[in-house]
Amino acid sequence: MRTTVGIIGAGPAGLLLARLLRNAGIDSVVLESRDRGYVEQRQRAGILEQGTADVLRAAGAGERLDREGLRHDGIELRYDRKRHRVDFPALTGGRSVTVYAQTEVCKDLIALQLKEGGPLLFEAEALAVEGADTDHPRVRFRHDGREDVLDCGYVVGCDGFWGVSRTAIPAELTRVFERVYPFGWLGVLADVPPSHDELVYARHDRGFALLSMRSPAVSRLYLQVPEGTDAEAWSDEEIWAELERRFETDDDWTLERGPITQKSVTPMRSYVHEPMRHGRLFLAGDAAHIVPPTGAKGLNLAVGDVVTFARALVHERETGSAELLDAYSQTCLRRVWQAERFSYDMTTLLHRLPGASPFEERLQLARLERIASSRAAETDLAEGYTGFPFG
Amino acid sequence: MRTTVGIIGAGPAGLLLARLLRNAGIDSVVLESRDRGYVEQRQRAGILEQGTADVLRAAGAGERLDREGLRHDGIELRYDRKRHRVDFPALTGGRSVTVYAQTEVCKDLIALQLKEGGPLLFEAEALAVEGADTDHPRVRFRHDGREDVLDCGYVVGCDGFWGVSRTAIPAELTRVFERVYPFGWLGVLADVPPSHDELVYARHDRGFALLSMRSPAVSRLYLQVPEGTDAEAWSDEEIWAELERRFETDDDWTLERGPITQKSVTPMRSYVHEPMRHGRLFLAGDAAHIVPPTGAKGLNLAVGDVVTFARALVHERETGSAELLDAYSQTCLRRVWQAERFSYDMTTLLHRLPGASPFEERLQLARLERIASSRAAETDLAEGYTGFPFG
Repeated sequence: MRTTVGIIGAGPAGLLLARLLRNAGIDSVVLESRDRGYVEQRQRAGILEQGTADVLRAAGAGERLDREGLRHDGIELRYDRKRHRVDFPALTGGRSVTVYAQTEVCKDLIALQLKEGGPLLFEAEALAVEGADTDHPRVRFRHDGREDVLDCGYVVGCDGFWGVSRTAIPAELTRVFERVYPFGWLGVLADVPPSHDELVYARHDRGFALLSMRSPAVSRLYLQVPEGTDAEAWSDEEIWAELERRFETDDDWTLERGPITQKSVTPMRSYVHEPMRHGRLFLAGDAAHIVPPTGAKGLNLAVGDVVTFARALVHERETGSAELLDAYSQTCLRRVWQAERFSYDMTTLLHRLPGASPFEERLQLARLERIASSRAAETDLAEGYTGFPFG
Repeated sequence: MRTTVGIIGAGPAGLLLARLLRNAGIDSVVLESRDRGYVEQRQRAGILEQGTADVLRAAGAGERLDREGLRHDGIELRYDRKRHRVDFPALTGGRSVTVYAQTEVCKDLIALQLKEGGPLLFEAEALAVEGADTDHPRVRFRHDGREDVLDCGYVVGCDGFWGVSRTAIPAELTRVFERVYPFGWLGVLADVPPSHDELVYARHDRGFALLSMRSPAVSRLYLQVPEGTDAEAWSDEEIWAELERRFETDDDWTLERGPITQKSVTPMRSYVHEPMRHGRLFLAGDAAHIVPPTGAKGLNLAVGDVVTFARALVHERETGSAELLDAYSQTCLRRVWQAERFSYDMTTLLHRLPGASPFEERLQLARLERIASSRAAETDLAEGYTGFPFG
């Protein structure tokens, strides 16, 4: 098999990239190790930055997003039983975010790709990227029980943290930056309308909690738990009781309960791989960087990466200059590090940090008070939440 | 001896408080353990927030300040050989800071107090505050070789971190918040015009450096050094060479050298004592809280405390209500914690932190890039630097 751009991974990054390239008249092949059902069901992020939603619309993947996505003009910070709303459009000149689950983005893009795009092979497991630093990179993969080779002009690794792409960059050219947090999120899906119409980020002495939603009928709720927690060790009753405690307020706000349909624990990690490019291999999304979920930057970063790659390749086609392709890693990393910083700050602002001194706990509250009392500090947060500019 | 307000310590806090009270027609006595020459010579801070300068002027202590003080409309951040100026008035609606050394503030206030104010006793060492929780607090002190007692309506402890005031608050009512940094500042005074007309805060892989000034002819320069460093272990040549390295830029900026006239090492500490009031004893300035010098908040916090106390006492005189006096600790601590947060953030933004991971070092650079590229983040810094509102 032969293609201009070999894309490993049919998550939102790989699927969107295939769409962007197809719209620019550039052919690609997408290899995905899992089956379609798995890709369309795995629970991940649910917050699209303004720029991400705009890109999906411009790519022709915005129809259901516009119909079913929930535009959110703010979030609530909750601490010391107080509630503070951050008003995004007022602080950022009109920007907002959209609640629309990653699963739905994937479904929309898969449907478009199968209807109008190039090959999208499910259960096609990439085994290795070879010749990344030559003019003829190849992806070896297994599909339908046999091994095959995809000859490419470029390979884009959208295969996540555990994929093979990253390992094709020689270790001696690589620098890794990492932080593991000693806690995770116990996340549940519940069939109950969300108890607040915007996300609620709660800092509580017992730990962080987040109220989010998938739709007007489905709540998505999270509790900070120690690392290594088994989701099944928490009964539904214990989860609701703990959520109620952490969301407590001085007014008459109440948390509505409903049947919990799914439970899982997400570990928390910050990770950056530098560089994000080696020869004709480009890393995008989780293959190159991980953020803790506080602040919802993961999906949005991946979108920024593939937009940057698509622009750079189109530029090369149109002008003959590889300048933007050569700058890919540097361009992406500027935005990646701002998102890493933002995600780290949101995480340390809101979580109970094991071993934190009383001084550090007071600083945490002083930071929340600062956001609640300074338009500048609040704007800094709102700009970060609604998204850093691409490239 | 008897007075309405017994003030322990003739640093800027105690001296300004005596002045504010005298202007309001309230009598006070100031006890200072050192002699006048010592108080007028000890090198401390040199940056007055907008609000601090305004208070000194309104108190009638602004004449020489206005003549000799240097108005600064910004600072420079230097990192990765780059220079970024933060423009205070443009970001804060016209606010600025004034470079005017603490020694000069003290000289001005001492001269005024001796000419127009109540008793100011030098070499009068406070031994203990007694009866803080009664209606008749007393300060026992030693002066002219004998012990005496000052009977007060109120006692204000402006006697610094090592003074006796704080220890008069029972330990069981007290909470202490503390952070010690594993580095200090080697500070020098040099008889050479400053090489830049505004302060330069430099983040360098070798450590932090600060270029400041005392006057158009005298530079004040600092280097981050490991804790426990002996100032005499650094030769003048070594100091200049290290300053040059840490201030390096991509343009043709140069550091002018001159004779070093003074050398000392300052340790770095964050400290807050809660509450700041016990009965009729009120703590102000370093007696209650310490900040690391990055951000120059120490003197300015002390000024905020005594302004808050003077206002509260005047309010009580005028209305009979002790409401503001009762709120003293809470009112001051709101501002104190914002200054602690700001000082901590400035310190960790700019210093080389022993044991910092590569991830944390990249975050530090991402924070500097954020300030240099977001008006909101830059405004947040400028607001903090020019000063949080009193009370």
